[in-house]
Amino acid sequence: MVFRVPIPKHSPFTLHNIPFGVISTESNPQKRCAIAIGDYALDLPLYLERILLLPSDHRRRRRHRLDEMFGRVFSEPSLNSFAAFPWSQRRDIRNHLIEAISEGSVPESCFVPMDQVRMHLPLRIGGYADFFCSLEHCQNCSIMTGGTKDNFHHSPMVYNGRASSVVASPTPVRRPNGVTWDTGKGSGEKPVYGASKKMDFELEMGYFVSKPVEFGDTMSIEDAREHIFGFVLLNDWSSRDIQAFEMPPLGPFHSKGFGTSISPWVVTLDALQPFACSPKHDHSATEFEHLRWKDRAVGTFDIRLRASLIRNGERHRITSSNMRWLYWTPYQQLAHHASAGCGLETGDLLGSGTISGDNEGELGCLFEATMDGANEMELKGGGKLGYLEDGDEIVLEGWCGEGEERVGFGECRGVLLPATC
Amino acid sequence: MVFRVPIPKHSPFTLHNIPFGVISTESNPQKRCAIAIGDYALDLPLYLERILLLPSDHRRRRRHRLDEMFGRVFSEPSLNSFAAFPWSQRRDIRNHLIEAISEGSVPESCFVPMDQVRMHLPLRIGGYADFFCSLEHCQNCSIMTGGTKDNFHHSPMVYNGRASSVVASPTPVRRPNGVTWDTGKGSGEKPVYGASKKMDFELEMGYFVSKPVEFGDTMSIEDAREHIFGFVLLNDWSSRDIQAFEMPPLGPFHSKGFGTSISPWVVTLDALQPFACSPKHDHSATEFEHLRWKDRAVGTFDIRLRASLIRNGERHRITSSNMRWLYWTPYQQLAHHASAGCGLETGDLLGSGTISGDNEGELGCLFEATMDGANEMELKGGGKLGYLEDGDEIVLEGWCGEGEERVGFGECRGVLLPATC
Repeated sequence: MVFRVPIPKHSPFTLHNIPFGVISTESNPQKRCAIAIGDYALDLPLYLERILLLPSDHRRRRRHRLDEMFGRVFSEPSLNSFAAFPWSQRRDIRNHLIEAISEGSVPESCFVPMDQVRMHLPLRIGGYADFFCSLEHCQNCSIMTGGTKDNFHHSPMVYNGRASSVVASPTPVRRPNGVTWDTGKGSGEKPVYGASKKMDFELEMGYFVSKPVEFGDTMSIEDAREHIFGFVLLNDWSSRDIQAFEMPPLGPFHSKGFGTSISPWVVTLDALQPFACSPKHDHSATEFEHLRWKDRAVGTFDIRLRASLIRNGERHRITSSNMRWLYWTPYQQLAHHASAGCGLETGDLLGSGTISGDNEGELGCLFEATMDGANEMELKGGGKLGYLEDGDEIVLEGWCGEGEERVGFGECRGVLLPATC
Repeated sequence: MVFRVPIPKHSPFTLHNIPFGVISTESNPQKRCAIAIGDYALDLPLYLERILLLPSDHRRRRRHRLDEMFGRVFSEPSLNSFAAFPWSQRRDIRNHLIEAISEGSVPESCFVPMDQVRMHLPLRIGGYADFFCSLEHCQNCSIMTGGTKDNFHHSPMVYNGRASSVVASPTPVRRPNGVTWDTGKGSGEKPVYGASKKMDFELEMGYFVSKPVEFGDTMSIEDAREHIFGFVLLNDWSSRDIQAFEMPPLGPFHSKGFGTSISPWVVTLDALQPFACSPKHDHSATEFEHLRWKDRAVGTFDIRLRASLIRNGERHRITSSNMRWLYWTPYQQLAHHASAGCGLETGDLLGSGTISGDNEGELGCLFEATMDGANEMELKGGGKLGYLEDGDEIVLEGWCGEGEERVGFGECRGVLLPATC
């Protein structure tokens, strides 16, 4: 009965990870919850069903710990109900799964090879807010935003994105049509309507709300951990010429809303805790009380990030970064979001904003890396990269730690389709 | 068996209206769909149930027309399923209800006095986009937005609002806390955190999407009517000092997201058609093709609007306006929203943006009417109005036509609660 699931050497999905997602398969097209381990998805409703068929001593033990607590939540087509459970109970189920997989007590039939699995959005997303919290990104984007504003240093900057156009990797995204200034630079030029000519990606992380905050209430930053379910990679696809047209004065709309990609496996806060670290920027002395995270040493996470381009079958690494570089951390972002009484709902998605650094090759989008397309990047084996071409694919990766203790996010992929005529 | 429902002389809910909403009652706390007529709500699932108990010749006729088509959709806690029906079928049910009420064939027991009804959000709102489409409002807000931008004249301006904090009248809304510049004017001042000191309302209309547009697809403006379920009044509560702090460069977030009120009865496009008219501003000669509405004479609707303040029990009329005054019409707004492939879902809410005019007393918010609080309005019976005080209530009203042919929206009310400490 013992089955040891193989975990390849560089797998993002080790026993230290156990990320949650929503799958379907050809033989069972119903969406349902799963975890990732090695090159397999573990079908959670199937597992719950099978362990009830085990010999009775096993059954009693498992039944008490799983069936009672999680009932049918894993048969739902999203992780919202699971994410709404208290942190301690979510931790219990994750610990149980780690133990059961380690001891080999999960029936082999519950594992589905990853290449036979179709991934879906992990949660039903009610609201999506995208932040602008990397000082380096902010400074590098000055030509688009009119310089780093005074407000940046006092409070996280954020706008509402479009929740209904967030898609799970590897769903393709289509180049939008829109009104732009003729050469895409700015006001004063002739307005034209057509396909965007300045297609970009943005290297971000996203995180999902677990415990809600009621409309009209606020949340203390000290409780922020209780309200975060877990993290994903997030590609905030952007159209820079539409953005330059539409930004003043209301901010981005179509330049971002035509599609946002996320990686499908949600890495829990528990899996990330061993990689807690201090943020690079220290502005704790001037922070408002409601944004102050007491223990700077564990104020954010050391998550290494990378973006690659696949063009004509060739994969080119184009940037790397680290979530530590963010000027305002996710805990501070969440505290800011909750501060005005708008409420937070289980399943709300928050985007970290583009994460740029100040080391070589740490520019989180093409607008920065190419100076709005003026300085094209040289691709290995010839070819140049300014803005994205139709058919280009962007792949984001992220991971903490190494070897058997690696906690990875897998990939967030998306191909850019040509605009409709 | 014949019951003639009384319709008071100035009722917004005449036989020419028949707006849809979601109600619950003390005796039946289940949310369900209803229409408004006179001072009554007509409980639609109850009606469908009762007409099946009528003598058989009646039953056969009704059964065919109602039961088959609408089944259980009116028992749902939102109008989303009904709104997703094709326009022609929604029109059929409205016409049937007009006929049945006119001939007195609706059993008296299906009518619930309005004062015994609790109203809820009429639709489950997935996305909420709020426009900025009144030229007069745009010009009057120049000091906040840095002047009327060139882009305003080429395309409707819009930002994503917070869908989950849209509430049904008369839900109270709480004054938000937030970071502002000390006197609320702008950059250069000391940043402070606390309760907003510049609370405002905005007089808008909202409209709901019926037929969806798939992610990646677009919609022709000629089909816009098919995609609109109906209209409501909308109060886009705003905090002007938080707005002045957070706007550059990403637009409004907390300054709008702490609450948005809508009137609970959705007035259908069919009810509004007799009041179709030309928009006041004619810029058809310079419009992009995808934003051009061919028949200007019926390009928008003649909807009269009014906002009042209730303070210390006294009601003060503070502004009036008309939806005709919008520079970009709802059809153009919808066509713009759909143009970049972000998709539209049944239940998405679009806000028209503040509707100001250039006649005396037609300024759609206090920021305009008081010049950012500098010129307080005199209230009848003494007292002054700058920005809103805790306990102030704002009441929006809107209507087309007069007497028996009046099509009204009822009221959109909301009391401003004090900030949390």
